[in-house]
Amino acid sequence: MLAYTPPTIEQRFVLDHVVRIDELAGHNAFSDATADLVDAIVEGAGAFALAEYAPLNRIGDMVGAVWNDGTVTMPAGFREAYRALVDNGWGTIVGPKDAGGQGLPFTLGTIVLEDLGTANMAFTLCNMLTAGAVEALAVHGSEELQTTYLPKLVSGEWTGTMNLTEPQAGSDVGALRSTAKPVGDGSWLIAGTKIFITFGEHDLTENIVHLVLARTPDAPPGTKGISLFLVPKLRPDAQGAFTEPNDVRCVSIEHKLGIHASPTCVLSFGDNGDCRGWLVGPELGGMRAMFTMMNNARLNVGLQGIQIGERATQEAISYARDRIQGQPIIEHPDVRRMLLRMKSLTQAARSLVYAAAGEVDRAHLGVEGAKARVDLLTPLAKAYGTDAGCEIASLGVQVHGGMGFIEETGAAQHYRDIRIAPIYEGTNGIQAADLVGRKLTGDGGAALKALIDEVRAEAAGEVHLMALVDAVAVATDWLLTTEVNDRLAGSYPFLDMVSVMTCGWLMARQGRVAAEMLKSGSGDPAFLKAKTVTTRYYLDYLVPEALGKAAAATAGSSLLYELTIEELAA
Amino acid sequence: MLAYTPPTIEQRFVLDHVVRIDELAGHNAFSDATADLVDAIVEGAGAFALAEYAPLNRIGDMVGAVWNDGTVTMPAGFREAYRALVDNGWGTIVGPKDAGGQGLPFTLGTIVLEDLGTANMAFTLCNMLTAGAVEALAVHGSEELQTTYLPKLVSGEWTGTMNLTEPQAGSDVGALRSTAKPVGDGSWLIAGTKIFITFGEHDLTENIVHLVLARTPDAPPGTKGISLFLVPKLRPDAQGAFTEPNDVRCVSIEHKLGIHASPTCVLSFGDNGDCRGWLVGPELGGMRAMFTMMNNARLNVGLQGIQIGERATQEAISYARDRIQGQPIIEHPDVRRMLLRMKSLTQAARSLVYAAAGEVDRAHLGVEGAKARVDLLTPLAKAYGTDAGCEIASLGVQVHGGMGFIEETGAAQHYRDIRIAPIYEGTNGIQAADLVGRKLTGDGGAALKALIDEVRAEAAGEVHLMALVDAVAVATDWLLTTEVNDRLAGSYPFLDMVSVMTCGWLMARQGRVAAEMLKSGSGDPAFLKAKTVTTRYYLDYLVPEALGKAAAATAGSSLLYELTIEELAA
Repeated sequence: MLAYTPPTIEQRFVLDHVVRIDELAGHNAFSDATADLVDAIVEGAGAFALAEYAPLNRIGDMVGAVWNDGTVTMPAGFREAYRALVDNGWGTIVGPKDAGGQGLPFTLGTIVLEDLGTANMAFTLCNMLTAGAVEALAVHGSEELQTTYLPKLVSGEWTGTMNLTEPQAGSDVGALRSTAKPVGDGSWLIAGTKIFITFGEHDLTENIVHLVLARTPDAPPGTKGISLFLVPKLRPDAQGAFTEPNDVRCVSIEHKLGIHASPTCVLSFGDNGDCRGWLVGPELGGMRAMFTMMNNARLNVGLQGIQIGERATQEAISYARDRIQGQPIIEHPDVRRMLLRMKSLTQAARSLVYAAAGEVDRAHLGVEGAKARVDLLTPLAKAYGTDAGCEIASLGVQVHGGMGFIEETGAAQHYRDIRIAPIYEGTNGIQAADLVGRKLTGDGGAALKALIDEVRAEAAGEVHLMALVDAVAVATDWLLTTEVNDRLAGSYPFLDMVSVMTCGWLMARQGRVAAEMLKSGSGDPAFLKAKTVTTRYYLDYLVPEALGKAAAATAGSSLLYELTIEELAA
Repeated sequence: MLAYTPPTIEQRFVLDHVVRIDELAGHNAFSDATADLVDAIVEGAGAFALAEYAPLNRIGDMVGAVWNDGTVTMPAGFREAYRALVDNGWGTIVGPKDAGGQGLPFTLGTIVLEDLGTANMAFTLCNMLTAGAVEALAVHGSEELQTTYLPKLVSGEWTGTMNLTEPQAGSDVGALRSTAKPVGDGSWLIAGTKIFITFGEHDLTENIVHLVLARTPDAPPGTKGISLFLVPKLRPDAQGAFTEPNDVRCVSIEHKLGIHASPTCVLSFGDNGDCRGWLVGPELGGMRAMFTMMNNARLNVGLQGIQIGERATQEAISYARDRIQGQPIIEHPDVRRMLLRMKSLTQAARSLVYAAAGEVDRAHLGVEGAKARVDLLTPLAKAYGTDAGCEIASLGVQVHGGMGFIEETGAAQHYRDIRIAPIYEGTNGIQAADLVGRKLTGDGGAALKALIDEVRAEAAGEVHLMALVDAVAVATDWLLTTEVNDRLAGSYPFLDMVSVMTCGWLMARQGRVAAEMLKSGSGDPAFLKAKTVTTRYYLDYLVPEALGKAAAATAGSSLLYELTIEELAA
């Protein structure tokens, strides 16, 4: 395993100058988030992850989760590390106070997940999914369900899962066929098969709480007929003790390109007609509850790009310092270019995801405009964050040269692990569709135009960024007036442009702050100088590239449909 | 295994309109390359590869080459398929006639390698390396070596390898330490360890012919002190029969991200002081001989991007037609965008690599300017071809959605396999350095300016392409006058721009020809219509993106060196 250092100074800097965490802590609801506590979390989570999760990254890849006759066994060391996480309370940051949580800002939960995932992306999916289940239950669950399940999920004593996908229903969730029939005692009989269930079975904890989308009798077709159910692996017996197996079976796990330590399960519910579930939220309210889970999950997936980006960048810098070809290869201009690109992209993606997380907290506080902003930033954070992660991991392989292709180095594992991120929690294409659909036309462009204005106000003097803002504004107007297929045809390049514009804005601000701090002699000079360079690199190198997407964003759909399917295949 | 169809119509079209194969066949030396023979090779190689190499692609990945105590065993079926290749004479296309080859254009050898590699990239490396050994021996070997070894290599009865890299000497070949000492009988005693030796050991053939770079006694340091030796696995006994083991041992093979069916060997020469080699070319002439091997090898590696690109594109189109999410996903605009991008990029890269191959043949014929053109196009073909291959394979994973991350689908294998191509045979960064160094400043920009003029003359009416030509011209002038680190700092984005300009030129020409043929009613209408769309897509979507690199190409190196190594790591 190569060394890495948790990026605590950088995290704290972005919390201060992008999220403005002190402003958040000024609100009553987050008054616990004092500067000292924030420091303790940033330092503590990084140290914990490095000590407990990082050493398991390679064994997790090589051995992976192992399925045998319905059980899934994690590699040696995972149970102990997970136990340490629970014992140290690292799962409790965001959870509600009355369920044993600390009720701290979502942004601080983001920091913890980032650190865990930089150490071990595959393992951390377990924490990510549990966080989503907590959120869904806390918002939509009945008091009884909350009392029974939330404390164990918040502590991490039990883990949570999200059960959407079925073989015929992936991006098209409305096509799902799993069923729920009322028993009469408040419980429902669940039947169906779900695929791609992350940590759907494992031996880290005694119980697993599945949140399952299913159709109730006579439900309308499509997404309107879907309800959400809580289906525990072990259900309560007459005394309320969780001892009864609940007729949920892990039929198999997938053989995947990466994240081998994350068991991707096929779960079969109700094979013996005895799988009990309980409604979360109202009947037919499944999609709304699912989106609660999913929106934060999308930010957390965007965060995975940063996790891998940080790790791959540090490892590449370390390798390039040590590897001599004539001179240390870090002295070669093109190697410098790759390293600076990796570092700059990682920081840009971090500022975008943190900014979105900060808006989640502001929306929670009811700050005006925050909900619209987080809705807008979510598809950007998910898609741009994960695309950046893939590019950075690939550059990491490249910097290692021939050694990058050898599995022992670890660079290849990052490249494999991160490739799932542009796919799950809504493919990046779906994020782009969400951006030009619900997020753009849903409010007639108001949220995006507000963002554009804000960027413009801060971008004075940045020639490339101003050009990009103008191009985004032009594309926005065009997309708002054209028809749906034209919008979708340009959605992906448009998403890129808006993402880079947003990152450029946040990077420009960070660069200014860093320069001022350097001048005034406050802060870590090496870090601040690096920040002035990574932000300048982003503005002068990455921003112009995004301008090259403008033609595609507004080209319309006609060329895409000029060929019949048969001609396309010719 | 998913179905694919060898792209024979496309290959023939590019041969006709980019390579102008009929013009090549007009020369005496290539008069055997009649239209009928070209058809037979294009059809035959595709059919052979599909029947014999393709079925082994997945087992090659899953089982891979297996090392045991110095031997390497290929997966079941590989020996038989390789035997069929030899029996059918598919290795003999390019080889010299007096050694049993057909002496046909290099371009036709390119077609054969493309087909084999589309079927099975890892396996085809064996053929690729043998072709390189044939070339080196045919150009630089003594008559005796040629008589003894060439016929067996040309037929494929024996295979060849290329031994450059040592643990401390990768891109910096001059740092190698292997030694050669004269025995007195014309042979040399070879000693040293080589790493990353593709097909350095296997059980496909009885003998393996290693071409090994080593230092002779009192040789000067660096690349000037290097000589090339032929070191067979089995050497001739007193009767000239190849029965004697030659003290070469495969110490281990690498555990790699992809191309598992290609054993990447650590070879130890002369552990027992009894490894014999014979000089290829003059003493201290190793670098020149190596470049003979390597230049064609670089084109062949660029070709691997096309191999994977073609396969991944066809599989993605096939999946997108069958996969229903509401409707077949191929109906979604963003899926169309991805498929069209994949197809367009594959065709663009193909036209670039074929164009370079055609110039290899013209250089062989002594056509004026051809040598300079192939020298210029080689780094473009290698780097752009392989980068395109990686992007296409990644898009292929994306089109498959969640299934793309599951190994059974095959999309992930392409993504893993192709990732080596930007690294080996000189990393793409080294290609970029070669472009702005030897290839640009070596002749004061003459070859590139000749290309620019040629593109400009054919690009009238193509707005984006003309803008790119202008940008390349400006960058060229700047690079020619600035200092070396500035040149290297901009080398990679510059390489991208020049590559896309060249591809845009060739795509524009193909689009015009296709439109004319459609109008006149000749050729396959579905193919031709698709060609008008893929070329248009390239010109309107891909070319503008390359313009976005102009800022980085001419930004100079100062920002890259503003940080000390410590600050970069901060």
